[in-house]
Amino acid sequence: MKRTFVADLPSNAGREVLIAGWMHTLRRVGKFAFLLVRDISGIGQVVVDSKEQLDRLSKLQDESVVEVQGTVVAEKQAPGGFEIHSPEIRVVSAVTDAVPFPINKAVLNVNLDTFLDNAAFGLRHPEKRAVFTLCGAAMAAFRTHLHAAGFTEIATPKIVASATESGANVFKLDYFGNDAYLAQSPQVYKQMMVGVFERVFEIAPVFRAEPHSTSRHLNEYVSMDVEFGFIEDHFTVMRLLTDLVRAMVEHLFRHCRSEVALLNTKAPAMPTEFPHIYFPDALELIYRRHGEDCRQEPDLSPQHERWLCEWAVENYGSDFLFVTGFPAAKRPFYTHPDPADPRYTNGFDLLFRGMELVTGSQRLHLYADYVRALADRNLPLEPFTGYLDAFRYGMPPHGGFAIGLERFVMLLLNGQNLRETALFPRDRNRITP
Amino acid sequence: MKRTFVADLPSNAGREVLIAGWMHTLRRVGKFAFLLVRDISGIGQVVVDSKEQLDRLSKLQDESVVEVQGTVVAEKQAPGGFEIHSPEIRVVSAVTDAVPFPINKAVLNVNLDTFLDNAAFGLRHPEKRAVFTLCGAAMAAFRTHLHAAGFTEIATPKIVASATESGANVFKLDYFGNDAYLAQSPQVYKQMMVGVFERVFEIAPVFRAEPHSTSRHLNEYVSMDVEFGFIEDHFTVMRLLTDLVRAMVEHLFRHCRSEVALLNTKAPAMPTEFPHIYFPDALELIYRRHGEDCRQEPDLSPQHERWLCEWAVENYGSDFLFVTGFPAAKRPFYTHPDPADPRYTNGFDLLFRGMELVTGSQRLHLYADYVRALADRNLPLEPFTGYLDAFRYGMPPHGGFAIGLERFVMLLLNGQNLRETALFPRDRNRITP
Repeated sequence: MKRTFVADLPSNAGREVLIAGWMHTLRRVGKFAFLLVRDISGIGQVVVDSKEQLDRLSKLQDESVVEVQGTVVAEKQAPGGFEIHSPEIRVVSAVTDAVPFPINKAVLNVNLDTFLDNAAFGLRHPEKRAVFTLCGAAMAAFRTHLHAAGFTEIATPKIVASATESGANVFKLDYFGNDAYLAQSPQVYKQMMVGVFERVFEIAPVFRAEPHSTSRHLNEYVSMDVEFGFIEDHFTVMRLLTDLVRAMVEHLFRHCRSEVALLNTKAPAMPTEFPHIYFPDALELIYRRHGEDCRQEPDLSPQHERWLCEWAVENYGSDFLFVTGFPAAKRPFYTHPDPADPRYTNGFDLLFRGMELVTGSQRLHLYADYVRALADRNLPLEPFTGYLDAFRYGMPPHGGFAIGLERFVMLLLNGQNLRETALFPRDRNRITP
Repeated sequence: MKRTFVADLPSNAGREVLIAGWMHTLRRVGKFAFLLVRDISGIGQVVVDSKEQLDRLSKLQDESVVEVQGTVVAEKQAPGGFEIHSPEIRVVSAVTDAVPFPINKAVLNVNLDTFLDNAAFGLRHPEKRAVFTLCGAAMAAFRTHLHAAGFTEIATPKIVASATESGANVFKLDYFGNDAYLAQSPQVYKQMMVGVFERVFEIAPVFRAEPHSTSRHLNEYVSMDVEFGFIEDHFTVMRLLTDLVRAMVEHLFRHCRSEVALLNTKAPAMPTEFPHIYFPDALELIYRRHGEDCRQEPDLSPQHERWLCEWAVENYGSDFLFVTGFPAAKRPFYTHPDPADPRYTNGFDLLFRGMELVTGSQRLHLYADYVRALADRNLPLEPFTGYLDAFRYGMPPHGGFAIGLERFVMLLLNGQNLRETALFPRDRNRITP
């Protein structure tokens, strides 16, 4: 007999069906019991009234896998309005150990470390599962939007010969007796590929050996990277990013309604154009509004990001805010300077609900500019040869950005810790399970 | 002025347009010249007849980036039937170094190592680019088919605490002073996630420290992984895989017509059902047809795979052939044994045009079976604890497989070397560029 999902019970009223899933809970009521069966579509109720079945089920722990064949009957009290009567029950996988913590309560009440130690089990909780349904859908939405905009998907290597972005914070690898490194980003490769495909994207893991362990950082995360050519300047990049982020949010609210509802996700305020503020103006604004004189700072602190986002909500009704023109000193050497004032760059951050979500920029595109930029920073040319060669053979003005998947979903859900939006987070103290 | 792609010149006849791209070639014919401009859509012809422009362009090397504004005129001799007259030409990025090898010939005539040393440049050749357009489209087709079949996309960690598949051939990493490893496959995690989502897929890099360097192996490649639950046995998995592979091939032939044509791609013979043969029968068949007595062998050699595929073409008109029931000795411990004969397994390979394309199986799903399987192989339990815990809390019968992206595209194109279908291949001797 073909399996029916429990969400399809209503359309099978009066019929004999076979459902399969996990024993979410078994609730005894006098001489009978309600067996709640959880499958990917929802939770279905089975009325168990045979003593033999009751005895058998009572010996099982929650999360045993069962198949139930029976008749679908309308019942207002049942979840979804239908339940299964006269069941035949087959135990597919009997669980004999008590589960580490209950996952059949509406809210999972367990501390994060215990949860992560038992992630393979705990992720079955419908709220946890919903978070990662959103992660999967966010990746799909990202690709759909970019495919429609003429982008090509690429897959670039994660084992690299040198640490291009900066020497620090890179994991070292034994590669057949030689040193190799894990790529901190596909930056080098996605820029090269602009020469081939003009517009490219990649979704892949990146690796950062940052030694600090905070709720805002992971040592491995999913980077959604974009790079494209024939741009005017960074505002072309910001325009694409705006449309992309709006499309991703809209996709989730349209295609993942039950998950969004289950997680009480508040729709972000997102005008067609996200407001933007020039970096020195942002510092001036903070000084004026909050009295903190940060006007000589080369970067924004977390508190600055929160203040600026408050300002954007108040003045533009936007949960998103671009900060443009970050100082050259704090941006990588490939960032294009601001032609009007080379102390600053055509680099930007996109802030979302008080935190940096995206970093992007226009890049240098002329070989001579790269040589000069490296010299200005006292960096040697040699480790960058393979990278720079791409710019010797004609590159158009180009730019791009990277969105951290875990961070995007965390901020969308008003979460506080990236460990809650990574399936199996990696941090300084955790590489299991 | 807004940019027009050269493929859109025909619909702009008589109009003034701006095109932008790379100087594919400059062909002088007496007092004028044809400037061929390559963009992502194709190659467009510009008639240059001003002496000043000719002098300026003559100083440039191929691959310089230019913008050309001019009038579109019908001209039968021009590529696409239209060309641009009275151009104004702006040089965006002047190339002054001669290119490493010409890429403006129909066929790229350069040895593989030279090509790979200059991949960022060489990949601009239309034939090379087409290969990777197909790679991108293959990933999209894989996801589209699985999304429609109710699968959830997951992202699992690549830094892991132990080498699960086997101790050998794993890259070791310095993780804040401790040892960690690069995941050889997402096997552990995708199985765990069957307990959460029932049906999952992932496309991500995998890392194999195989010391041999052959045309059939890469040390890093893109693995397209599938795992799903509530199956009957491995034939349920093979059914899904058949539909998936057919959908991927059909997608490429439908959506990448020009790439498929440019690369002379021969459509594979693929019946609705791929033929399958039981491992011992396959060895018997080889003995009967070719006289090689391999009937005691635990695995297939490359020659065996070629012979079996010849047989499948002759007898079933299929370029695809399943071999089922591989011996337990040669399959990982998580492979479900053949219930009828536990010397063999519910593991299969899918052969395509003489080579293994996919390995898959039904997996064990009961905790006790895992404990026994490890003991049978004299493997310790401890390193597998995190993995096995998932099976203590109820897992349905499940199975899955992995398709190597580079291998799929290589075999589709009748290629001979995986280094030609990886953008920046990694092998024992190459981790640059």
